[in-house]
Amino acid sequence: MGFADATAVTPGTTAPPPPELTRYDVTIAEGWDILGNANGGYVLSTIARALSTTLGRPDPITVTAHYLRPVSAGPAVVDVETVRIGRTLATATARLSRDGSPLVEVLGAFGDLGPDGVAPGAPRLLRGAPPVLPPVEECVSIASASDAPTQFSSKVDMRFHPEDLGFVHGTPSGTPRMRGWFQLPEGEPLDSIGVLLAADAFPPTVFNASLPVAWAPTVELTVHVRARPAPGWLRGTFETWFVTGGRLEVSGELWDETGELVAQSRQIALVPRPTS
Amino acid sequence: MGFADATAVTPGTTAPPPPELTRYDVTIAEGWDILGNANGGYVLSTIARALSTTLGRPDPITVTAHYLRPVSAGPAVVDVETVRIGRTLATATARLSRDGSPLVEVLGAFGDLGPDGVAPGAPRLLRGAPPVLPPVEECVSIASASDAPTQFSSKVDMRFHPEDLGFVHGTPSGTPRMRGWFQLPEGEPLDSIGVLLAADAFPPTVFNASLPVAWAPTVELTVHVRARPAPGWLRGTFETWFVTGGRLEVSGELWDETGELVAQSRQIALVPRPTS
Repeated sequence: MGFADATAVTPGTTAPPPPELTRYDVTIAEGWDILGNANGGYVLSTIARALSTTLGRPDPITVTAHYLRPVSAGPAVVDVETVRIGRTLATATARLSRDGSPLVEVLGAFGDLGPDGVAPGAPRLLRGAPPVLPPVEECVSIASASDAPTQFSSKVDMRFHPEDLGFVHGTPSGTPRMRGWFQLPEGEPLDSIGVLLAADAFPPTVFNASLPVAWAPTVELTVHVRARPAPGWLRGTFETWFVTGGRLEVSGELWDETGELVAQSRQIALVPRPTS
Repeated sequence: MGFADATAVTPGTTAPPPPELTRYDVTIAEGWDILGNANGGYVLSTIARALSTTLGRPDPITVTAHYLRPVSAGPAVVDVETVRIGRTLATATARLSRDGSPLVEVLGAFGDLGPDGVAPGAPRLLRGAPPVLPPVEECVSIASASDAPTQFSSKVDMRFHPEDLGFVHGTPSGTPRMRGWFQLPEGEPLDSIGVLLAADAFPPTVFNASLPVAWAPTVELTVHVRARPAPGWLRGTFETWFVTGGRLEVSGELWDETGELVAQSRQIALVPRPTS
């Protein structure tokens, strides 16, 4: 039997049972937006809290978000459907909606990244290292680099590699990459759900490419959280390798001050046709 | 308002409406397994056919699968819930179940990778290239390298870089990487859904690491299909950079004979504790 036959599907002969959903009320807060659209990492973090609460597991292990429509500030609901509660991982889907219209769909597996969750003596291999960055004080915030910083730039404390901020003044580096330091402002601690914010907080890599791309809306973002972050700054690097077929990917890494890999991320974004 | 407050969730005050599901009957075919567990790419392809059929869009653009339980051969059902039908993309979730027990949960966006689906003049950037492989006839099939090839190795036609097959005889390369050629046997054409099979058909990269890891069950796999494959062989490369906290990721690329990037993939897999 060939592949096509082996993957055939036919309309079902029995009806599926209706799933049970758990609903949460949320408020997409003011000021977490870029030009009116709430940051994707912030929205994902909010949905992840509903998932974590439902599943009774503290840490996102792998979460995937599909961004269906722009999310503006205001009340919304998150409906969670538990798929499986396993020993190591618990899995669920969640949908952020407003007025019955789905805005973001998420599929995630949650677990325990604390001392009880990781087996001692597990095999370990690091073939990469944190990005090399100048010290925090030699890196640059968007607020200090831009004449018109977004409100979002005050919600997170990010300091970028000076080589990667040329785009602010119309001189992109030519390499679609963003590197910098990340923390929450005013000493707010960052938990593993906040890592999802960090995974989508950096400016678009494509701003540093020599391409006619002014924006690139995220279709899908997947984050693998590899460890709870230690207190202090995260170092992040986000890079695009391929712009093809009207889409581009962004691959990211986040590392904490102890040199531990905290997360890997990858997203696919649309590259709108240039308008002339 | 800080991050924690901005992401707060509270139990909902209204009840969610029950979703409408479309059910498909499927048969997980014999012989597509490794030691009794159906290959994850094969299972994902089957689920993707149900998604594509429901959404009326031919091509997976980005699909994420969570593997909840091993999938053995035999009848099963796929329940699809349409999330959004947009102009460019249509999005749905799907669940493969047997006897009411969920086996695989998928979230995917489908679209059109044909000539009508990609805008002419879209920006293009390739910062990478297909893997450098010896000619097909100098690469090695599992069947010829192994004394006990799996049945699965007869369902796909794969020829591996000779440097990457040392693990078969207990001499791993030391680099957790697998490179090789891929096609369906007997001239069966490969469509964009078949690319999902190719994205999870190569042996585990970790077999080539000098680590005590005998298997690494996939938790989650995301594939971005970037183009419909041209007829002929695909070139694939799959590589692991980090084994930490009892998990490892695998990042992959598939390229076709015209030099087009066909897909990028990334998965997170568990690294079971070594048993002594």
